[in-house]
Amino acid sequence: MPSYRPINSRAPFIWHGGDYNPEQWPPEVWDEDVLLMQQAHFNIATIGVFSWVSLQPAEDSWTWGWLDRVIEKLATAGRNICLATPTAAQPAWMSQAYPDVLRADDRGRRVHHGGRTNYCPNSPNYRRLAVQIATKLAERYGDLPNLLLWHVSNEYATPCYCELCAQAFRGWLQQRYGSLDELNARWWTRFWSHTYTDWTQIEPPFADGERNIHGLTIDYRRFQSDALMECYKLERDAIRAITPNIPITTNFMGTFPHLDYRAWAQEVDVIAWDCYPWPKAYPGDIAFLHDLNRGLKDGQPFMLMEQTPSSQNWQPVNALKRPGILRLWSYLAVAHGADTVMYFQWRRGRGGSEKFHGAVVEHSGRNDTRVFREVSELGAELERLGDTTIGAMTPARVGVLFDWNNWWAIDAAVGPINPKNYVEFVRKHYAALWRKNVPIDIIFSDSDLGRYDLVIAPMLYLVKPGLAERIEQWVQSGGTFVATVFSGVADETDLAFEGYPGPFKQVLGIRVEEIDALYPEQHNQIVMADGSGSYSCANLCDIVYAEGAQVLATYGEDFYAGTPVVTENSFGQGRAYYIATDAEASFLDDFYGHLLEAQGITPLLPTPTGVEVTLRATEQRRLLFVLNHNAEATQVPLPEGQRFRDHLGAGPVGSTLDLPPYGVSILEVQE
Amino acid sequence: MPSYRPINSRAPFIWHGGDYNPEQWPPEVWDEDVLLMQQAHFNIATIGVFSWVSLQPAEDSWTWGWLDRVIEKLATAGRNICLATPTAAQPAWMSQAYPDVLRADDRGRRVHHGGRTNYCPNSPNYRRLAVQIATKLAERYGDLPNLLLWHVSNEYATPCYCELCAQAFRGWLQQRYGSLDELNARWWTRFWSHTYTDWTQIEPPFADGERNIHGLTIDYRRFQSDALMECYKLERDAIRAITPNIPITTNFMGTFPHLDYRAWAQEVDVIAWDCYPWPKAYPGDIAFLHDLNRGLKDGQPFMLMEQTPSSQNWQPVNALKRPGILRLWSYLAVAHGADTVMYFQWRRGRGGSEKFHGAVVEHSGRNDTRVFREVSELGAELERLGDTTIGAMTPARVGVLFDWNNWWAIDAAVGPINPKNYVEFVRKHYAALWRKNVPIDIIFSDSDLGRYDLVIAPMLYLVKPGLAERIEQWVQSGGTFVATVFSGVADETDLAFEGYPGPFKQVLGIRVEEIDALYPEQHNQIVMADGSGSYSCANLCDIVYAEGAQVLATYGEDFYAGTPVVTENSFGQGRAYYIATDAEASFLDDFYGHLLEAQGITPLLPTPTGVEVTLRATEQRRLLFVLNHNAEATQVPLPEGQRFRDHLGAGPVGSTLDLPPYGVSILEVQE
Amino acid sequence: MPSYRPINSRAPFIWHGGDYNPEQWPPEVWDEDVLLMQQAHFNIATIGVFSWVSLQPAEDSWTWGWLDRVIEKLATAGRNICLATPTAAQPAWMSQAYPDVLRADDRGRRVHHGGRTNYCPNSPNYRRLAVQIATKLAERYGDLPNLLLWHVSNEYATPCYCELCAQAFRGWLQQRYGSLDELNARWWTRFWSHTYTDWTQIEPPFADGERNIHGLTIDYRRFQSDALMECYKLERDAIRAITPNIPITTNFMGTFPHLDYRAWAQEVDVIAWDCYPWPKAYPGDIAFLHDLNRGLKDGQPFMLMEQTPSSQNWQPVNALKRPGILRLWSYLAVAHGADTVMYFQWRRGRGGSEKFHGAVVEHSGRNDTRVFREVSELGAELERLGDTTIGAMTPARVGVLFDWNNWWAIDAAVGPINPKNYVEFVRKHYAALWRKNVPIDIIFSDSDLGRYDLVIAPMLYLVKPGLAERIEQWVQSGGTFVATVFSGVADETDLAFEGYPGPFKQVLGIRVEEIDALYPEQHNQIVMADGSGSYSCANLCDIVYAEGAQVLATYGEDFYAGTPVVTENSFGQGRAYYIATDAEASFLDDFYGHLLEAQGITPLLPTPTGVEVTLRATEQRRLLFVLNHNAEATQVPLPEGQRFRDHLGAGPVGSTLDLPPYGVSILEVQE
Repeated sequence: MPSYRPINSRAPFIWHGGDYNPEQWPPEVWDEDVLLMQQAHFNIATIGVFSWVSLQPAEDSWTWGWLDRVIEKLATAGRNICLATPTAAQPAWMSQAYPDVLRADDRGRRVHHGGRTNYCPNSPNYRRLAVQIATKLAERYGDLPNLLLWHVSNEYATPCYCELCAQAFRGWLQQRYGSLDELNARWWTRFWSHTYTDWTQIEPPFADGERNIHGLTIDYRRFQSDALMECYKLERDAIRAITPNIPITTNFMGTFPHLDYRAWAQEVDVIAWDCYPWPKAYPGDIAFLHDLNRGLKDGQPFMLMEQTPSSQNWQPVNALKRPGILRLWSYLAVAHGADTVMYFQWRRGRGGSEKFHGAVVEHSGRNDTRVFREVSELGAELERLGDTTIGAMTPARVGVLFDWNNWWAIDAAVGPINPKNYVEFVRKHYAALWRKNVPIDIIFSDSDLGRYDLVIAPMLYLVKPGLAERIEQWVQSGGTFVATVFSGVADETDLAFEGYPGPFKQVLGIRVEEIDALYPEQHNQIVMADGSGSYSCANLCDIVYAEGAQVLATYGEDFYAGTPVVTENSFGQGRAYYIATDAEASFLDDFYGHLLEAQGITPLLPTPTGVEVTLRATEQRRLLFVLNHNAEATQVPLPEGQRFRDHLGAGPVGSTLDLPPYGVSILEVQE
Repeated sequence: MPSYRPINSRAPFIWHGGDYNPEQWPPEVWDEDVLLMQQAHFNIATIGVFSWVSLQPAEDSWTWGWLDRVIEKLATAGRNICLATPTAAQPAWMSQAYPDVLRADDRGRRVHHGGRTNYCPNSPNYRRLAVQIATKLAERYGDLPNLLLWHVSNEYATPCYCELCAQAFRGWLQQRYGSLDELNARWWTRFWSHTYTDWTQIEPPFADGERNIHGLTIDYRRFQSDALMECYKLERDAIRAITPNIPITTNFMGTFPHLDYRAWAQEVDVIAWDCYPWPKAYPGDIAFLHDLNRGLKDGQPFMLMEQTPSSQNWQPVNALKRPGILRLWSYLAVAHGADTVMYFQWRRGRGGSEKFHGAVVEHSGRNDTRVFREVSELGAELERLGDTTIGAMTPARVGVLFDWNNWWAIDAAVGPINPKNYVEFVRKHYAALWRKNVPIDIIFSDSDLGRYDLVIAPMLYLVKPGLAERIEQWVQSGGTFVATVFSGVADETDLAFEGYPGPFKQVLGIRVEEIDALYPEQHNQIVMADGSGSYSCANLCDIVYAEGAQVLATYGEDFYAGTPVVTENSFGQGRAYYIATDAEASFLDDFYGHLLEAQGITPLLPTPTGVEVTLRATEQRRLLFVLNHNAEATQVPLPEGQRFRDHLGAGPVGSTLDLPPYGVSILEVQE
Repeated sequence: MPSYRPINSRAPFIWHGGDYNPEQWPPEVWDEDVLLMQQAHFNIATIGVFSWVSLQPAEDSWTWGWLDRVIEKLATAGRNICLATPTAAQPAWMSQAYPDVLRADDRGRRVHHGGRTNYCPNSPNYRRLAVQIATKLAERYGDLPNLLLWHVSNEYATPCYCELCAQAFRGWLQQRYGSLDELNARWWTRFWSHTYTDWTQIEPPFADGERNIHGLTIDYRRFQSDALMECYKLERDAIRAITPNIPITTNFMGTFPHLDYRAWAQEVDVIAWDCYPWPKAYPGDIAFLHDLNRGLKDGQPFMLMEQTPSSQNWQPVNALKRPGILRLWSYLAVAHGADTVMYFQWRRGRGGSEKFHGAVVEHSGRNDTRVFREVSELGAELERLGDTTIGAMTPARVGVLFDWNNWWAIDAAVGPINPKNYVEFVRKHYAALWRKNVPIDIIFSDSDLGRYDLVIAPMLYLVKPGLAERIEQWVQSGGTFVATVFSGVADETDLAFEGYPGPFKQVLGIRVEEIDALYPEQHNQIVMADGSGSYSCANLCDIVYAEGAQVLATYGEDFYAGTPVVTENSFGQGRAYYIATDAEASFLDDFYGHLLEAQGITPLLPTPTGVEVTLRATEQRRLLFVLNHNAEATQVPLPEGQRFRDHLGAGPVGSTLDLPPYGVSILEVQE
């Protein structure tokens, strides 16, 4: 098992640090900060995020002094730097001088200055000035020996609907479709007399305009994701030209709806993401997001760039992370592929809208708080781990397919049920597999399927060109494929196939004739053909005709009682399954249990409920992360005949692993 | 009993067909469509709806070829045509060339191009171009022998608040009120210093402007209904000048809030409406809408212009119509006066926002689907009925009054409870009568009362000039009148009467002093004076003083316990009742049961719960439609001594009618 | 015990009257009105509210005639006048001639004309024309002997976000902060790169602009309150110059969110407010609002300017005031310091949005209605009271602190829980004290603490300069202070203190390290250290370290179980308590019960549940108001050995006071 290289070879260990905004504080606090960072075992500080006006208070005025001094203090104290470009919020002077910098809302009205990610990604002035400051930062600080990473801008986010965007969109469409005839055909514009007879007639999908051409809606989301990515690339290229050896990234936000991170992934050197689950999050849902981020670059370890050390502030209820949760969720990230454990934020600002967001150093400035203590102890522990986990891989035989374009198309689609909750649906399937303690990759429509024995594509409504063919070939040669309700419905411009599941008909051996929608209080049943029992299902029920497939289960109720709900089709060397409904979790647990067993994919360790096991492996070692998500101490019996060493414990482990509440072990098999 | 003439004497049978959009498909599909239409017993296709840009891709360019060919194919295959003008959605080029075509939202802001019914009804350019294309269509296709009907535009709908509308509104008001003094007086504008001192000060009731003058609010709704009607009339008149013998209509939408269909009714040759109940609709509520449409032209049969063969797509949950429901609900329409059974849509488009709306031909294009089969079987059955039901009347002795102006005024009124749910209130009273299996007419403020023995006017808040006098005279000469809570409150410009129930005081013999509003969890009781029991009531309780009327029931609770809640007043030869509250359904069942009995109005047939009976009668025959709304088979005992023939069955029927689930019979009494 | 002087020495009795809009009615109704007012014992009519266009139908045209005649009729009938300036709604001609008069919404978009309080408070034209008409009114009617009071405008209310406001705001900020550097520092603008480099960059906190600088948000609310107050002051000063001896006020709206009434209070001669509780209001919540209004001028009696005689109209459910409630709630006002009992409105208008709002004279115009009878009987009773209660004081030893700036800051704050419901939290603490039948003052951040033995400051998040020092000194010299969760967090520009509870740390002897937020279904416990029991708590839990304070109770659950939740700190001669959570009502009942007992603050009378007792005292007499809020008759045992006379009853009272449902007594102790 090979390993990945560290993010930056200068620092081959787990980076422990976070966002630091010294510009908000007087210099005397800086000295305090550096001392406290040493106590907290912070080995890296992210600086410069949102510093634009502090560095460039006017278009022709630059104030580097404070940053020079902060950087010097950090260097002197032996701390590394992740240096951000400050372009996620433009200064007020810029919005004032260049109104095109401000974005427009979804009715095309320019918004006022304020907040953040408030700029138009197609604004020439924004782009020019962003590249300028990125260049200057690289020129000034690019040679610092403790500069480990460039952090371009911050949490790219917000679409714009201004006239500049509309113009750029038309150009983007001309590239994509070549002719207006082709565009009209792909968008099915003769519906409701919507044919465009001139490119200039095309507008963004305004809330008070055109929202009935779903090809347009989806393409505009693609275009806006691309436009923001172009902003990123312009800064990145300017920096790379100056510091070709320092990795460059920007921070993602999990299943953020507006950016196709799979497309973005190829433009960053390392995936970095900000992990803010709500306090009551199901651990499998957090695991899903980490696996998603590891999947974005096909398995390459990622950065946990931000997490709160204690609480968030913008949710209705912002409960504190209970003692131990910070450590547990930090290792949860590492267990799924993170090579860093970082926070937002180092020190709480005294004003502004995030002053009640958790921080390592609270308003009191004390280092004897619970939170500071937990952070420091975790820092020390991570320090002791050294490079043990760095670059380790997660060899998975199971892939779960997620696709932003598919999400956008499902969101745009009107009927049969509204809304359709794609992400929740994918997570539900993922969670059933996650509870088996087997490594899972999140994969995408363009992923190499050859690495997997089992691929699940939940609600794959939109099928990109070539995907169905690749799936067919892969099943032909032995793969096991699972598809579900509302799949194979439309092509990449949202043109419905002439019969569902479209290009998956052959491999699945079925035909879907109708799709029924159930009211929230309604359910149907999945009755297993082998008499093994029945399960509940809800929301959407495809009415299916088997055309070659074997019927594993039938509906229990309604006029389609007795018709197929779960089918299996032998296809070449492989098999393809169809689950024609939204099945309850226990069905998925049993169904995937059988599939995994049939494939010989066994749990890394069998564990009691609430204890998760993941694997990270290097050339040197195989590390089992055992994570107790329970608030109670839990015992995990270890397999007989194997000896383990706990990298977080005192050393060798007996026949049973005793995990305290929220406890974690990193077991290495001693052969 | 006389009959109405068929809609078009060329086609004296039930029209079975629907919306067909060939412009969305390549010509090879057209041949397939014509074949499938024959299989489906489609005898009419509605074409041209939303074809504007396909017919006129630029202001000076016309592309008739495709339509010529489609029409030829339909003719060759012996199919009739309902030809629509395409003016319900203007082409993008038109919005671009003439921005006045786009409507403005309720803050006066012009919207962007997109969607449909997106035009300003007062736009001179829209009107000019709409009339132009209507004229050209009539000139080109008016002589077709299979052209049965003109379908002007589609589902007129959306109000506009632009400056052109504001100007036209001022003119409309000058016509209506003559002087600004009169307008100020009728609108009670001295309230809150709202007196207008110049006509130009009057603006539409903007959401961020004037919503406190309810006379203005109601008049603007009248004006917008009139303005859209003017658009209809301009097209109609242009067509009629060319094809004086082909009937012309447009399609209505039940109790659509923005158009006063009673006013529109006199402008169409036949009422046509689009019936889209939600999947769980109460059958009595659907029946109400059919009776409403039959009532719009005082009993003349109407067209069921659109219904979905399977599911809708824009509701939160779009359940499929269960097998048999399509047939049941089609006959429900015929039972209440429809002479057509038509669908939206023939073939599902592959793109656009309605691609998941039900269609006769689904995306698969197959003719072996459940839906295609149900449609075809129904088509064949309707074909067998021939002209049996055509032009039949529904002789009703009971009228339920509904009025759009009243609805608008109730909606605008603030207090005593918000909102007041006028339509639901009317439907509740209607449903109690409907459950009796007696024919009911929906009537309007200008209807001829002389046809009825019993008239119910639920929540008649706004009283139009002359109505109260006509009711008085009619009761005087023997009519039975029922009024309810919150009635007789305001005149047609929403000026409150000086004491309620205003002009109904004499005929009802009561006075309302106060109106109490109950919280949703609160109830009062209706205690019958004759000791027969008590019922629950809710929402609104008038506090009533009997001034001549007899007290039939009193309130059971609260400080007005013991005061009248149901009263009866003898007035001349007739009687007038007042129900001072929102009574529970079982009260209405009993109350109307007694009233009908007293009038000698007996059920067409007594039936088990869930089985409805209606009557349609011609000079030749009396047809009882027996509709089983139950999902279970149900037996209906038939009256002894009478012999029946079932037009949908094998022939004669015995002493009991056995209806399968959702089953229908059309019984003709054999004398 | 001294007394206050009457509002106007010409009328030393309870004013009984209300809003009268004769301009809406023809002159013949005026004669009727005057007769009915005599029957209703109306001794004052408020006229002129919303009469602007009726007095000035064009900029250069004045129509005084109708008002002259109305005033003459009132004078002839011996009725007094409260004369309003009509400036709460500008005429349409003014909005048309001077568009700057119209305000802009929170996105900066000018609204359309309509409604009321629809003007920009910084509009020069509005100000000029408002002062002009106020001046003319004073000149014309200032000498009337029956003119008792000026009522400037009406219910000042609505903030504006126009460019004129933005400019004025910048000037206001320059006054407040002197330099941009100071402003940037106090607003912590380096957060998210928000530093202003020019005054012109500062904009109002637009909904689509800057809502992340909470110092800006709060200052804009201060500024808008000031701007509207400036409008009031301009009119007032113009009037005062002409009629220096007639008191001037405007009507407040309880805890209206947009105006800092404590600041306004010093500009009015008498507090007047409009009391519109919802029908199911808890009586303690109404009492709170009356005490708040009495507190605004430090105990001076206030005016109940408006209340509905029967129902409101704009709530979802507008139940009638049950018989007796009008009398009970009128005396509730007097019991807490009102010297007037007045209504909106005299006669219901026949049109406009308030035509279903309760009135003394309903649409019927009758004087035999329940409401007219209740009003008349109350009027007669108040007349009999003469000057008994006029100017009486309420000597309270307990103060509850309320502060609008604090509310605004809490509302702006994001986290730890959203929203935080400040007003409800204050009312909850107030209600526990109110249930003890002890006089309570609502006090403010600038109030004189020396008058009180016990001061409670619920959720005092924002601490104004000097307040903490004054509290410290007052506790030092014997005061008892109670603070709660989320207190001492930020200074007056919303800069967080470096550790909570900020400047209260010394006096409370504690330190708060973290703040936990609980989901609605979650609770923790307050476990009393003395073993006396435990209580439930919710929403917010400070995690507290005692630093000198004694721990009275600890949390019962979660990771902070056993840590302090209620503390007591001896400080000089006094004591300071901290309640670190949102405690259930029964805790507050017991906790304040002990505190009051310890201070020797005893109930005015012990009463059964639902019976409230308040005190008003003059030099001559001590009056106990005993109010039965129960719908049932209730007996109150009176203390032995004391003799009472009931000012509302037949005279002397025995050992038990028998109160009918909703009954009231005004007992005077006979010594």
